[in-house]
Amino acid sequence: MRDYKFGLSEKEIPYQWYNVAADLPFKLFPPINPGTGKPLEKDALRPIFPIGLIDQEVSSEHWIDIPVQVRDIYRLWRPTPLRRARNLEKLLKTKSRIYYKDESVSPTGSHKTNTAVAQAYYNKKEGIKQLVTETGAGQWGSALSFACNIFSLGCRVYMVKVSYHQKPFRKSLMHIWGAEVIPSPSELTQSGRNVLKEDPHCQGSLGIAISEAVEEAAKNKKANYALGSVLNHVLLHQTVIGLETKKQLKLAGEKPDYLVACVGGGSNFGGFAFPFIKDKLKNNNFKMIAVEPTSCPSLTKGLYRYDFGDEACLTPLLKMFTLGHKFVPPGIHAGGLRYHGCSPLVSALHKHKIIEALSCQQVEIFKAAITFARAEGIVPAPETAHAIKVAIDIAKQNKEKCIVFNFSGHGFLDLASYDKFLAGELKNYSYPSNEIKKALKYLPMI
Amino acid sequence: MRDYKFGLSEKEIPYQWYNVAADLPFKLFPPINPGTGKPLEKDALRPIFPIGLIDQEVSSEHWIDIPVQVRDIYRLWRPTPLRRARNLEKLLKTKSRIYYKDESVSPTGSHKTNTAVAQAYYNKKEGIKQLVTETGAGQWGSALSFACNIFSLGCRVYMVKVSYHQKPFRKSLMHIWGAEVIPSPSELTQSGRNVLKEDPHCQGSLGIAISEAVEEAAKNKKANYALGSVLNHVLLHQTVIGLETKKQLKLAGEKPDYLVACVGGGSNFGGFAFPFIKDKLKNNNFKMIAVEPTSCPSLTKGLYRYDFGDEACLTPLLKMFTLGHKFVPPGIHAGGLRYHGCSPLVSALHKHKIIEALSCQQVEIFKAAITFARAEGIVPAPETAHAIKVAIDIAKQNKEKCIVFNFSGHGFLDLASYDKFLAGELKNYSYPSNEIKKALKYLPMI
Repeated sequence: MRDYKFGLSEKEIPYQWYNVAADLPFKLFPPINPGTGKPLEKDALRPIFPIGLIDQEVSSEHWIDIPVQVRDIYRLWRPTPLRRARNLEKLLKTKSRIYYKDESVSPTGSHKTNTAVAQAYYNKKEGIKQLVTETGAGQWGSALSFACNIFSLGCRVYMVKVSYHQKPFRKSLMHIWGAEVIPSPSELTQSGRNVLKEDPHCQGSLGIAISEAVEEAAKNKKANYALGSVLNHVLLHQTVIGLETKKQLKLAGEKPDYLVACVGGGSNFGGFAFPFIKDKLKNNNFKMIAVEPTSCPSLTKGLYRYDFGDEACLTPLLKMFTLGHKFVPPGIHAGGLRYHGCSPLVSALHKHKIIEALSCQQVEIFKAAITFARAEGIVPAPETAHAIKVAIDIAKQNKEKCIVFNFSGHGFLDLASYDKFLAGELKNYSYPSNEIKKALKYLPMI
Repeated sequence: MRDYKFGLSEKEIPYQWYNVAADLPFKLFPPINPGTGKPLEKDALRPIFPIGLIDQEVSSEHWIDIPVQVRDIYRLWRPTPLRRARNLEKLLKTKSRIYYKDESVSPTGSHKTNTAVAQAYYNKKEGIKQLVTETGAGQWGSALSFACNIFSLGCRVYMVKVSYHQKPFRKSLMHIWGAEVIPSPSELTQSGRNVLKEDPHCQGSLGIAISEAVEEAAKNKKANYALGSVLNHVLLHQTVIGLETKKQLKLAGEKPDYLVACVGGGSNFGGFAFPFIKDKLKNNNFKMIAVEPTSCPSLTKGLYRYDFGDEACLTPLLKMFTLGHKFVPPGIHAGGLRYHGCSPLVSALHKHKIIEALSCQQVEIFKAAITFARAEGIVPAPETAHAIKVAIDIAKQNKEKCIVFNFSGHGFLDLASYDKFLAGELKNYSYPSNEIKKALKYLPMI
């Protein structure tokens, strides 16, 4: 009987990250310094990032060595399994073959540790003592706390207020690894105070939390900023996912017809999909689908424009699909996808129609999650359920296709959300056109 | 560089369970029918167990085939990894080599699924429609819910009241897999009503919850009872743990000096240790240590007597180390270990000094858990932390020894307990001699 799992040995963890920027058939728009209106100088990022990561951000090398100290930590949980979802196939009565790359086996339960560990390492190497960051649902904050603990760095996490209350145990995890967690918007930064002045009951957003973290890191010489998604170097680190998946699909004797992953800032989608881009450019015979929530539809409903990465306009301008940096998404339970923008790399690939994007409703993704949990056993994170929903929809077309999706995280710490779903308390959000129209008015004129 | 992980392929999942009862150098005391004072007739268990499991309970076969339907479900997460805890060794600056068998990779996060799936299968095969059970911290209830869902059985779980409130998300998991969860003691059974009459604020105990579940299963012709520990057939199913571990230690080129696991009812300890018993009897050159909480010290402070498995005296009498079936342990956070008795097999091995037992304090085990989480990344279940505490203590002796412990479950759903520990709110429990002396007065005179 054929294997359920396609496991690799430790020596098959990649030795290098793959830099998709080196293989794009078009030129990327550079980040813009909002002060000058000109392309951002490398030095401009020195107050918040170490040189090692800035170099990666702008690199045109195809392959970048993974430092042995980082790979050594990867060995705690990598390579991650690729599993054949046979029970799900049976349940759906489909001729399609469904595989999922299980990143939920990491110590923090998601793919975020792939970049957290790398970022902590490069910062430690350059003498930084503390990292400051933001987190939505808490997956990124947990991952960075874990990584900072490994490298003996301090860690402060600004957690989006609605998620701080919805997901209390992400906070607990961060505490176990010694981090400090602040609900955002907070009184600790000017950005936070400004937001609270306008709206004392603001639920928070990733955009606001980024502002707070960036502001603090820029002011504190011993602290740097670490971002969980969006930027090139972050997606670079995540390519270990897709690189392993390629090997595993070969072991399984499969060529994918569909590659599916959820998308917020773009890190799990990019990490999963980018190693397949060259194949896609060569033989356009498979689809790569990024799935976002209808309540925060950057790729499907946003504009492809230069915009700030954060609410308070402290970051450079990035060319990306955006709903406007002032957009505060509804408090959906897939907190990790509540970001107004998207990785410039993912955005550019979408603009050039090399990848596709779909959006799904909150209630539908939870239904898909329950279907998966009952078929395959693992409870998915609500973010991951977006990919599952689309994978299931494709499988229901009942064609002999190979569908591979990224199981970016488990839902052990999202069970309060599942409770609400099972109690019928969750709702769908239609495309909030008024809020988005309003936010899009604030786009910079570039 | 040597591997961190010693992985096996799916074809190395055992095809047979190992029945240690067939290799014991002494005769086991049989279960006694409390009504007659004579050995229990097989038929006496028919109201609550299927024949397939009753046969296993009394079998003298060395090896028992694992049904392909059960092994097929095992393939979802087995074989489980054996990991070398190199970071922990570095942190402790020890010459010892520490390995842990990671059962936390199961869909429900612990070893309990190894027997839940088997029990659901045998019941389904014999036409049973529903299983009823008890659960302490919720690990067993989650596992049985998962298994019942796989085999389309109904599932009702009586959850010890103190844990029902301490671990709300175990309840959520059970709901995701379609089970019904009742806080125990409840008004639904005579046993429950009797307890509540005496003590309306009773926190509950595994003993009481067992009474409720057994009573309901005995009365309902379409429902059977499923137990998460204690009985021979349950520990039989768990031997997949130790059987895989033996192969993995061979791959690692190791002969263990210490095998350590936490013990409550005995299922993870038995499953881990029993496959090594023949070696132990042949060459008495390694130690097998069962670790229990000081607040519920059945093996270290109990009497080796015939006692009921439950509080209301509905079960047969089992010869085991017991604190008395009326003993209600303090509300420690390692809810899965709050049981007055212990597996008759494990008890007999302890009586004959083939295995040893140690007890640990609550605060100490949480300290060990945090040490482990910070070194190795994975957050342990509080139950598992008992094994970690002893493994760390042995490693601190700094001898060139091979220490292997069973990482029975992760702590993603115990984070509220970790919060309390980090806030300094947990306390140690000294040997509660008055409560135990009182409970021991109720031991049957056999």
